[in-house]
Amino acid sequence: MTDRLVVVGAGAVGAAVAWVAARDRLAGEVVLVDPDPGSGASRVAGGMLAPISEAWPGEREVLELGAASLALWPGFAEAVAADGGLPVGLRREGTVQVAVDAADVADLDRVVEHLRAWGRDVERCGGRELRRREPALGPAVRAGLLIPDDLAVDNRALLAALEAAGRAHGVVVSRRSVSRVLDDGVRVTGIELDGEVLEADRVVVAAGAWSGALHPVLEGRVRPVKGEILRVRARRSSLPPPSRTVRAAVSGRPVYAVPREGGRLVVGATQYEAGFDPDVLVGGVRDLVGDVERVLPGVADYALEEAAASFRPGTDDNLPLLGPVGPSGLFAATGHGRNGMLLVAVTVGALAAALRGDPLPDAARAAAADRSAVAPG
Amino acid sequence: MTDRLVVVGAGAVGAAVAWVAARDRLAGEVVLVDPDPGSGASRVAGGMLAPISEAWPGEREVLELGAASLALWPGFAEAVAADGGLPVGLRREGTVQVAVDAADVADLDRVVEHLRAWGRDVERCGGRELRRREPALGPAVRAGLLIPDDLAVDNRALLAALEAAGRAHGVVVSRRSVSRVLDDGVRVTGIELDGEVLEADRVVVAAGAWSGALHPVLEGRVRPVKGEILRVRARRSSLPPPSRTVRAAVSGRPVYAVPREGGRLVVGATQYEAGFDPDVLVGGVRDLVGDVERVLPGVADYALEEAAASFRPGTDDNLPLLGPVGPSGLFAATGHGRNGMLLVAVTVGALAAALRGDPLPDAARAAAADRSAVAPG
Repeated sequence: MTDRLVVVGAGAVGAAVAWVAARDRLAGEVVLVDPDPGSGASRVAGGMLAPISEAWPGEREVLELGAASLALWPGFAEAVAADGGLPVGLRREGTVQVAVDAADVADLDRVVEHLRAWGRDVERCGGRELRRREPALGPAVRAGLLIPDDLAVDNRALLAALEAAGRAHGVVVSRRSVSRVLDDGVRVTGIELDGEVLEADRVVVAAGAWSGALHPVLEGRVRPVKGEILRVRARRSSLPPPSRTVRAAVSGRPVYAVPREGGRLVVGATQYEAGFDPDVLVGGVRDLVGDVERVLPGVADYALEEAAASFRPGTDDNLPLLGPVGPSGLFAATGHGRNGMLLVAVTVGALAAALRGDPLPDAARAAAADRSAVAPG
Repeated sequence: MTDRLVVVGAGAVGAAVAWVAARDRLAGEVVLVDPDPGSGASRVAGGMLAPISEAWPGEREVLELGAASLALWPGFAEAVAADGGLPVGLRREGTVQVAVDAADVADLDRVVEHLRAWGRDVERCGGRELRRREPALGPAVRAGLLIPDDLAVDNRALLAALEAAGRAHGVVVSRRSVSRVLDDGVRVTGIELDGEVLEADRVVVAAGAWSGALHPVLEGRVRPVKGEILRVRARRSSLPPPSRTVRAAVSGRPVYAVPREGGRLVVGATQYEAGFDPDVLVGGVRDLVGDVERVLPGVADYALEEAAASFRPGTDDNLPLLGPVGPSGLFAATGHGRNGMLLVAVTVGALAAALRGDPLPDAARAAAADRSAVAPG
């Protein structure tokens, strides 16, 4: 008996869980199974580690989980970079959230009030002061918040570093498609791969938007939420990009621009409830370009390097599904919605505890996979 | 002595000249040299064969050359398809040129007058009649012209068919970079490839925007004119694409959408005098999307498959450079501007005559490469 742990899905979450399980010897063998590692929602992410600027009155548990994960992120990043021997591209410049019309300004004021009630550090500025701090912001920007605690990560650098870190600890990567998790009614027995069976003592489902199809106990608990992003790059003739993550609502549509090395920005994100529709839509690109130009007009002269779509794994209550669920030996690490990059740090701690047989850490308890499903709306 | 003919540049023009030279045994050996065949302006083309809708008062020689080439196109297409064993995707649905504001309508009327003076078949319609014929046209379209004689070609299908046709007749393709054409002061002796020399009796320069660097006699006669296009695809949920090529000026900016198989449209084209700047610009994509949506609003729901830039080879008088130029044995087949696809048919005839030592056909005489350069503006 090898005490085999299979992790299904090599996005950031699955790769991170596999790495920690191998590093901490939580199983005799760790196999990470994905037909195309790093190709899903993790690849098409802004990489904002931004519980505060994502916050909205009423989503208290989402904010708390995010804040707990943000606190873990610097240590997580350091450990991944050390084990993988590659940088993860953590940026500490913070976020500026801006408003461009009267309705947006009113929203901003409500967010400030809410965040201050939570004791968060946030500075309210007028447009002129914001442009002094971030000259890339355009004249349409009327007001904004400086949020110094938010971090951002280069999602593709993180994926590469996690893959290397896992390899360094002996994670076996199998480029196969998993059709389902097998159990004998009491405990997990393995997974089915293109008709073949791979035996396993424990299975972590980290298959993002596809997780619901892998075991009946997860069916209907994760849905695809399509999102599109652009990757753009400042040219020699361009205005330099902002140093902070820039977020805005333009005509009510949220848009963000997250800096990357080399003068690049990741601009996102559209959001559709459209099932597994893989197309990048002309209208989505038009909205992203129009909205980011409203806030950062210099982007017009940037190079468009990529337009991509992916499927965020959404849940009814916007909290992920973490830890044991269903038959003995089955674990979930999925349903992270738009916040997979942020929540990966708290997720690995929660899964490590669960794989040891310990209860979930307090911070992750609201996201326990075996909680009752909450009815939508 | 092999009587070697080297053709520099494997875009549509170079590949077609090489094919005809090999087929008609105009040389003992035909070598087509290009580091990446089919990757230049020919790959990023709308494929309109549209001398009439491209016409503008004053460019009489451009229109005549285009009209002569259009007349040759059906026979050219048939011969390429037969020799290559592949379809070239010739479409016969014609063009509709539309106007969306009062200034555009006035321009349209001037074009009608001009074309009718030339005896061209063109039908003027109101917006309602146009939408009856092409339901994809949006409510912003006020008037337009139906131009039944214009054809369109699938540029990538043509490139594939030309490559196969050349291979069938023994064209040798060499994936190398040519740095210059060599001569002894009187006649061509070969080409320089990455420092090596390949001897040749005759050389055809068909290197598009890069042609000017290959021999002093061509220096300054061809410049890069950057253009960007989009490739979009109708989805199951989309309004169907138009059956005709659609052209418009939106706020004075020309835009076209050329149908392809599979519900695809090629949308173009921006135009910049920006040297060899290879980037697809965010602002260029924004303009193309905004302008095409104005005319064909259903495109918003299409998939964006590709955004690409290339360099059209521009000349001072908008006519290509065809036939003998400079030292004996040197020939040009370049400078086709935005009209390379249209003009390839007349070009192969002109080059075949020149390689036989005959004078250029009457239709091509205005484009003789050894004409005096015309001062710009």
